Amino acid sequence: MIKHAVTEYPVQDFIARRWSPYGFANREVSEADLRSLFEAARWAASSFNEQPWSYIVATRAQETEFSRLLSCLVEANQEWAKAAPILALGVTTHQFARNGKPNRVALHDLGLATGNLVAEATARGLSVHQMGGILQDRAREIYGIPDGSEAVTGMAIGYASDPDSLPEEIRRRDLSPRTRKPQREFVFHASWREPF
Amino acid sequence: MIKHAVTEYPVQDFIARRWSPYGFANREVSEADLRSLFEAARWAASSFNEQPWSYIVATRAQETEFSRLLSCLVEANQEWAKAAPILALGVTTHQFARNGKPNRVALHDLGLATGNLVAEATARGLSVHQMGGILQDRAREIYGIPDGSEAVTGMAIGYASDPDSLPEEIRRRDLSPRTRKPQREFVFHASWREPF
Repeated sequence: MIKHAVTEYPVQDFIARRWSPYGFANREVSEADLRSLFEAARWAASSFNEQPWSYIVATRAQETEFSRLLSCLVEANQEWAKAAPILALGVTTHQFARNGKPNRVALHDLGLATGNLVAEATARGLSVHQMGGILQDRAREIYGIPDGSEAVTGMAIGYASDPDSLPEEIRRRDLSPRTRKPQREFVFHASWREPF
Repeated sequence: MIKHAVTEYPVQDFIARRWSPYGFANREVSEADLRSLFEAARWAASSFNEQPWSYIVATRAQETEFSRLLSCLVEANQEWAKAAPILALGVTTHQFARNGKPNRVALHDLGLATGNLVAEATARGLSVHQMGGILQDRAREIYGIPDGSEAVTGMAIGYASDPDSLPEEIRRRDLSPRTRKPQREFVFHASWREPF
């Protein structure tokens, strides 16, 4: 199933086809694909080329590790994310490595890296469902994430499922239409809220 | 000029070809391209589909507006960014619109949207040079950005210049090699700093 965005202006296929499925097919992700996803993240831009992002990954093939990572998601996310073949946490570090000064855009730059990862995934026919609903303190404890670094997001990675094979509640979510604000509500010119 | 990333694992062309030029060619960006860039940003994922991002745009064709936006960059960035045909600010809003509660990932989600914008630009042969070095208070004052929202980044958008036509200092920067940490330093498994 492809939930192609209904765009007002043309965009690349890998942008329009990206969406966040709740239902994942019972199909592995190859190690080659996974490495290329993190390679895409690796080449994102960042302030002073700091690359403040890190990822913690678990594959369903390694059951114990998969369960540990799953336990860092809020319960409502565990419900559906447990079906994904790959789980990950997106982590950022809030100080520059070279001088310990605060990096104001550390969260932003994790977003840039994950944006690359998601675009690479979409181009390969994979789906990524990102989650804000994670247990940050639990992730810190389980993985020994040091002070100054922070688990920010969870990610479920895999192939979107045919909706017909999904339980009704997940099927309903995956069939709901994709909606966005129009450009006039977020692209401005000359002053705040004046449409470009 | 294409500064193709020297990747350890294969990635899509629009990922490998992205870099941040200091030198921009004297060539306009079409309105159609510009609209598609913001359309790509529009369809990014965000926590609760909040879409906390906004952009303020100025084109060199409108001199006064271009100068106003240029004045929101730190001086070192003004030096080279003044040659770009398009400047923009990336802005995020830190509270959810529906309930006023803090959005922990507002900065991160601006990064996702801008990541989409940059990927769309690269696919179209355009370059985006993002900057953390902006004058946030000045941007707030000039554009009337309200409390709770924040200008986070500057962006110069255009076509990268042939380096041979650039002043020595900018040419040197644009010919410097692109470097990144290896995956083992940011992709972990089972515990912090244990390579995946």
